[in-house]
Amino acid sequence: MRLRKTVRYFLQLAYKGTNYHGWQIQPNGNTIQSEIESALSTLLRKPISITGSGRTDSGVHAFHQIAHFDTDSELVPQQMVFKLNSILPNDIVVKNCIPVIDEAHARFDAVERGYVYHIDLARNPFSANEHLYVPYELDIDLMNQAAKRLIGRQDFESFSKVKTEVNHFYCDIRQAYWQVEGTRLMFVVRADRFLRGMIRAIVGTMLEVGRGKLSENDFVDVLKAKDRRRAGKAVSPDGLYLNQVDYPAEIYI
Amino acid sequence: MRLRKTVRYFLQLAYKGTNYHGWQIQPNGNTIQSEIESALSTLLRKPISITGSGRTDSGVHAFHQIAHFDTDSELVPQQMVFKLNSILPNDIVVKNCIPVIDEAHARFDAVERGYVYHIDLARNPFSANEHLYVPYELDIDLMNQAAKRLIGRQDFESFSKVKTEVNHFYCDIRQAYWQVEGTRLMFVVRADRFLRGMIRAIVGTMLEVGRGKLSENDFVDVLKAKDRRRAGKAVSPDGLYLNQVDYPAEIYI
Repeated sequence: MRLRKTVRYFLQLAYKGTNYHGWQIQPNGNTIQSEIESALSTLLRKPISITGSGRTDSGVHAFHQIAHFDTDSELVPQQMVFKLNSILPNDIVVKNCIPVIDEAHARFDAVERGYVYHIDLARNPFSANEHLYVPYELDIDLMNQAAKRLIGRQDFESFSKVKTEVNHFYCDIRQAYWQVEGTRLMFVVRADRFLRGMIRAIVGTMLEVGRGKLSENDFVDVLKAKDRRRAGKAVSPDGLYLNQVDYPAEIYI
Repeated sequence: MRLRKTVRYFLQLAYKGTNYHGWQIQPNGNTIQSEIESALSTLLRKPISITGSGRTDSGVHAFHQIAHFDTDSELVPQQMVFKLNSILPNDIVVKNCIPVIDEAHARFDAVERGYVYHIDLARNPFSANEHLYVPYELDIDLMNQAAKRLIGRQDFESFSKVKTEVNHFYCDIRQAYWQVEGTRLMFVVRADRFLRGMIRAIVGTMLEVGRGKLSENDFVDVLKAKDRRRAGKAVSPDGLYLNQVDYPAEIYI
């Protein structure tokens, strides 16, 4: 028996989160991670674990998520992609499989994450569980003024779930803006990291700015308070998409 | 009691057809028409019938469908739109309600209909029941050459369901082309009328052209044969959208 070298791969994934209890494996309920590990284990005929760039919550979607795994399989990456997609349910798609250096880590090496939150300003029969429908008028200029106040390295405890295992609440937000396309409204945000529930709490609070219930200064006060009770109600996970995870070029072989 | 004038309205509708047995009321199963009639009857507190521009089959969607109804209600159109949408399920949306002349007829006055058939060329976790996924290579140029041969007033019996109640199979196709946007492929078609199952049979046959199994001349032979058995397999209704219904300007008040 010939020993084959073990290779680490990054899987590029897209999924509709509606029918899953989030990314991370849980004792009860099916998750994105468990579906992919199960498909990989079937394909490669041994138990395979994967490590994601981060956890998406229940109902949250991904246009672009990254996970790593190791295998000594002789299958070429494109064969793995094809075969995994025939095993996986239709709402989880492997877009690509890329060899990386042995030390590459999907979570620790990610230098930036990007999310988009999708809102429908008109009723849309096709967007159940995929966008948030907002029936009231919003002042997008006010929301964009508030969004600018998010930029930079700041303490985001006001927008974090209270029960969370983090050492600190600092995140470096590099981009945050609202964009309108016809009757669709999108919040685009990029940072080095995000706290649990952070984007949904930020969007909920900014909707209060857009309705005129909070001023830009009120919004900054909420941010500075470091108190989750000061922020608005978190919006539904239905509209939230992990859109991008960036790594340094050196990790690719 | 004051007698109010009865007014005819056109409803502009959008719906996701996945959960319905098509447009037309049937003894078994819920339909788009029955949901809308039920919502109108609840709102206006008397039985209301509607007449659609045409029937969409089970699973077929609409970005833009038209139906007419009559009422002596004093509600203004925008009130009716708002209230109907709060009664209707989320996958059926009333976009607008427009007063028309008493003689206007959603079916008989329609001068042109437009459909779009949506295909995904890459797996898409968000498009279950909304697009057809095609895993094989297609030659779009060949498909567009075949599409050009559909233009004009011709007998389309080869692409019609065999059991159908029509006097003749002539349709005047005014526009028919394929369009690629990234990994999405769309077939756009406009005509004075369409036969039952016609677009799905045409798309199925054109996919055989795109795969190189039928030449452009073979395609024209199928069309000329006036025999449904010569055409390709009908594609799924999942990708089909009624996109447009046109009326003469004179019908609007």
